[in-house]
Amino acid sequence: MREVAIIGASQTKFGELWDISFRDLITRAGVEAIEDAGIEGADLEAMYIGNMSAGLFIKQEHIASLIADHAGLTPIPATRVEAACASGGLALRSGIMAIASGYHDIVLVGGVEKMTDVVDPTPAIATASDQEWEAQQGVTFPSLYAMMARRHMYEYGTTREQLAMVSVINHENAAKNPKAQFPMEITVEQVLNSSMVADPLRLLDCSPISDGASAVILCPAEKAREYTDTPVYVKASAHASGTIALHDREDITRIDATVHAGRKAFKMAGLEPKDVDVIEVHDCFSINGILAIEDLGFVKKGEGGLAFEEGVTRRDGDIPFNPSGGLKARGHPLGATGIAQAAEIVWQLRGEAGKRQVEGAEIGLTHNIGGTGGTAVVHILSR
Amino acid sequence: MREVAIIGASQTKFGELWDISFRDLITRAGVEAIEDAGIEGADLEAMYIGNMSAGLFIKQEHIASLIADHAGLTPIPATRVEAACASGGLALRSGIMAIASGYHDIVLVGGVEKMTDVVDPTPAIATASDQEWEAQQGVTFPSLYAMMARRHMYEYGTTREQLAMVSVINHENAAKNPKAQFPMEITVEQVLNSSMVADPLRLLDCSPISDGASAVILCPAEKAREYTDTPVYVKASAHASGTIALHDREDITRIDATVHAGRKAFKMAGLEPKDVDVIEVHDCFSINGILAIEDLGFVKKGEGGLAFEEGVTRRDGDIPFNPSGGLKARGHPLGATGIAQAAEIVWQLRGEAGKRQVEGAEIGLTHNIGGTGGTAVVHILSR
Repeated sequence: MREVAIIGASQTKFGELWDISFRDLITRAGVEAIEDAGIEGADLEAMYIGNMSAGLFIKQEHIASLIADHAGLTPIPATRVEAACASGGLALRSGIMAIASGYHDIVLVGGVEKMTDVVDPTPAIATASDQEWEAQQGVTFPSLYAMMARRHMYEYGTTREQLAMVSVINHENAAKNPKAQFPMEITVEQVLNSSMVADPLRLLDCSPISDGASAVILCPAEKAREYTDTPVYVKASAHASGTIALHDREDITRIDATVHAGRKAFKMAGLEPKDVDVIEVHDCFSINGILAIEDLGFVKKGEGGLAFEEGVTRRDGDIPFNPSGGLKARGHPLGATGIAQAAEIVWQLRGEAGKRQVEGAEIGLTHNIGGTGGTAVVHILSR
Repeated sequence: MREVAIIGASQTKFGELWDISFRDLITRAGVEAIEDAGIEGADLEAMYIGNMSAGLFIKQEHIASLIADHAGLTPIPATRVEAACASGGLALRSGIMAIASGYHDIVLVGGVEKMTDVVDPTPAIATASDQEWEAQQGVTFPSLYAMMARRHMYEYGTTREQLAMVSVINHENAAKNPKAQFPMEITVEQVLNSSMVADPLRLLDCSPISDGASAVILCPAEKAREYTDTPVYVKASAHASGTIALHDREDITRIDATVHAGRKAFKMAGLEPKDVDVIEVHDCFSINGILAIEDLGFVKKGEGGLAFEEGVTRRDGDIPFNPSGGLKARGHPLGATGIAQAAEIVWQLRGEAGKRQVEGAEIGLTHNIGGTGGTAVVHILSR
């Protein structure tokens, strides 16, 4: 299997981007990644795009070719990959395989979502859950994650304040990220006083509706130093499926797909959680930040809340968590998230993360979830 | 690069399948492919699903994990690939890469679409064209292909009767395919007297709205004989993008993505069109059967119509075309089509195609198009 490296990364500002279209947004991210890698568009041999639901958000399918066309890159092969909110992470895995297989050398992997062009994005987002058994009955994602949070509180004594700390730490980091949707600090009190969405989750426990795009450039590891002095190597790419509907799970305080993908990734990389210097995990709701560090093995089951309360997950703690600001504060344009996570880890490992730099980071991990855990994708990257 | 083989294939009946849901449909195809390969579900290491727009047709995204879950296959990695009507062909290419890369050994690739659960499927289908420049202006696929047909008639003298012969030959074959949506013969007169859809295309020039699913099982070529005495080998897998919108093309009598993907496929296989014994090409409208055999190099540009008129493309002719009945008569459940094409070639190369068998077929080709040619995927398979 050919090893793969990342030689370029980009992310547009995340937010409500009224002044730019879907196709311009991803093209902008692509051009910036190409410039960052120091290559030309003509060097690209293939493109992979992670996107959850352009069909429902902007009434456009067939988007990978549309993007290749709009960016002047035809006739390169352009493939869209979809796995709900894990579409970006899965597109990255597909791009890695395209190189590992020997089919292609220089590959652009992008992620994009334009969520603010519809009046109500909720029905589109709900298609990541089980339409027949969940969405059609009126269950939405905040309510699904609220049940997971409530059960976690019941089983492990996780507190409302500990949940709030996930958002507080995300915002601490986002305040230092100029590309974040909400680059400001917040307090536990502000979280606890924000409007109720689905008990116990309040507005400041929830990731926002976002527009945004992100891209990375991949090449075979043995060629990476032809392009850059600071290549980032893919040590593991793992992916697992899980039950779509929450009621089918043995235990809703655990996301089995995360557990499986995490174990596979650590095995593939020959590493353990303690070897990892920085993580970007899928905190679509505050509870998921806690589940992620538990299910990936960074802390014992049930001790995730305490890790946030004690600040272990702060940028200068033992488990530097979401230096980008995470889904909560960097923003969560669904298909772009998995790529933005990888881009942040690339910048961290290169030492280019500015005021939010985790000192001396050499190994990073990304964790991208679809739905309530029907999909999990984990990547381990190293300097 | 590891070589890949196909060891199992299946297709559900195509048609208006009111009695079966999306998830049951693809699960049925998957189970039949698994049985055909003589393996167990537990042998599967990964799954790829081609699907154009479950989001718009059944309000469900995140479908690959949904299918893995419904079929009891979690936690295997399950990836959905989308490229409009070429989603199936592109999922096949992704599955091939998953094995070629060394990431996985036994992979199921399925294609599925449930198009009859909406009152009007036209807006969903139109998302394969350029929403901003085509669909929103009211242009639909029959009218886009009608312009291509009209121009081909003008440039090359292609006749209305020659177009009709594409459908006549497809139906000749479909009449011998029990899984076809329309297994009956038709005449040139019936085509010419059918209702006008978009001048010059009439109802019997157009592929139907279909439900259906199809699946194949892949494994490394060197292991194929452990599972079957009749493996089918992947000699080439090629993919190209092209302009989405028709008005951006230099020449609308040619589909550049087909030309590029075809050339790459023949180069990869070390073969020429004359080496191919049977083809399954993308005849979503009769004109596209003509464009396909021209753009793939089976006949000279402008001589496609004549080939159909003279019966060269009949099952016993020099270019045995769409023995399954093609999109026109086998049916066209968008995401399933590319896989159904591969399944048909598998049966032809194994000599298992019954009354529609092309005698002595050793090498076959599939050609799957997205939109009016924004995507083309070509596979060459051999005994």
